[in-house]
Amino acid sequence: MNKKKKNILELTEEFTDEEKKAFYKAIYSRRDVRSHFTSRIIKDDVIARILNAAHHAPSVGFSQPWNFILIKNITTKKKIKDSFEEEKNRSSKLVEEPKRSKYLSFKLEGILESPVNLCVTYDPSKFGPFVIGRSSIPEAGLYSVCCAIQNLWLAARTEGVGLGWVSILSNDILKEVLELPEHVVPIAYLCLGYVDEFAQKPDLETAGWLPRLDLKEVVYFEKWQDTKNVEWNQIQEMIKENLDYA
Amino acid sequence: MNKKKKNILELTEEFTDEEKKAFYKAIYSRRDVRSHFTSRIIKDDVIARILNAAHHAPSVGFSQPWNFILIKNITTKKKIKDSFEEEKNRSSKLVEEPKRSKYLSFKLEGILESPVNLCVTYDPSKFGPFVIGRSSIPEAGLYSVCCAIQNLWLAARTEGVGLGWVSILSNDILKEVLELPEHVVPIAYLCLGYVDEFAQKPDLETAGWLPRLDLKEVVYFEKWQDTKNVEWNQIQEMIKENLDYA
Repeated sequence: MNKKKKNILELTEEFTDEEKKAFYKAIYSRRDVRSHFTSRIIKDDVIARILNAAHHAPSVGFSQPWNFILIKNITTKKKIKDSFEEEKNRSSKLVEEPKRSKYLSFKLEGILESPVNLCVTYDPSKFGPFVIGRSSIPEAGLYSVCCAIQNLWLAARTEGVGLGWVSILSNDILKEVLELPEHVVPIAYLCLGYVDEFAQKPDLETAGWLPRLDLKEVVYFEKWQDTKNVEWNQIQEMIKENLDYA
Repeated sequence: MNKKKKNILELTEEFTDEEKKAFYKAIYSRRDVRSHFTSRIIKDDVIARILNAAHHAPSVGFSQPWNFILIKNITTKKKIKDSFEEEKNRSSKLVEEPKRSKYLSFKLEGILESPVNLCVTYDPSKFGPFVIGRSSIPEAGLYSVCCAIQNLWLAARTEGVGLGWVSILSNDILKEVLELPEHVVPIAYLCLGYVDEFAQKPDLETAGWLPRLDLKEVVYFEKWQDTKNVEWNQIQEMIKENLDYA
């Protein structure tokens, strides 16, 4: 049996306990990385594996509406960094002291320090205009792109590559700098690079900006805000305590 | 060392080759499941692990803007199923024959057959109004919810639980049936259950509806549609051939 066929057959098998544990390690150790980037080059085969994981995300009507623009040109990066600075300054005026100073003290991007930047875009025209599942909920196309981004993020983590999503940016500037056509939407601007550590907790949790919610605070039963439905009482007991990392 | 502390320390370690392989198995074997559901009950601890994986997704400004509404009530499910039928019929009029008949022949949901339905919602008011990273790109909040959905989907796969995303639905009906407040947005309606098989390929690929794009067709360098940038020629060679499943 050739390798490809063997790999495809393995895909239909159940996960062993060890495999599950490895998967949950990726889920719980993934971080949004803004510092700790090293200058170590990301090899092309690593980048290719990360992109291939993204490309195997689910997409509405199998429309695969994503594109990935790899960026290392310093002039491009500097233009994006300027946009970040401008937007950060602008948004800081929306929050009162003492939070404003705290916000301004955070390191929120690694555009210049990370060796690879990556813009992920949404092209609604791909395989259109009729895409199965996109007529009733047109936003479903961009939801697919976000699923690809999460695949990419988790794959980067397993490869030891840190990733930070910079959303303090002007999409108009991004479109101009990357020469995106009018109908294409930039969804994410990501900074990728090896890091000297993955933090144990999200930076904003460690800094005391916001707490991690308990699982029981985000789960409802049968309808909005129902937390006591008797048909679901066992799972209510189970999620009262925060679950240990899997 | 107690178990929790040990688990947290392990999160900062590199991934072994075996762990990477297990992770990529989840990426490549995840399917959008609309049939093959069995009546086997999903145990509460499995549901809790899947939800906890979703809750550990990245979120803009650590806002955790998601909620998860678990549904098994048959009256609720039937109302959602009715909405699906109506929207499917309506959208079929947007596509010409012979594609219309093919579209109408597809099985596109498993609302009644799957033991658990799950609506994932976005609450922009959570921890607001100022959320770090959401001022310049307000959509970043719903992108976070989509990342949670992809975590959930992959976790379900590793647990052997199939998941199908139904986007042929009226969000107005969903809001009414689940009693969502005006400001809360339903992002996904998901069907979960054990399945007697995970297909080797996406159903719409197998049916010849659309082909899987080659990776090289979705990757650009430095700007939109640049596929030949000399600074990136090695990776261009690498992704010319489709990568084998990892």
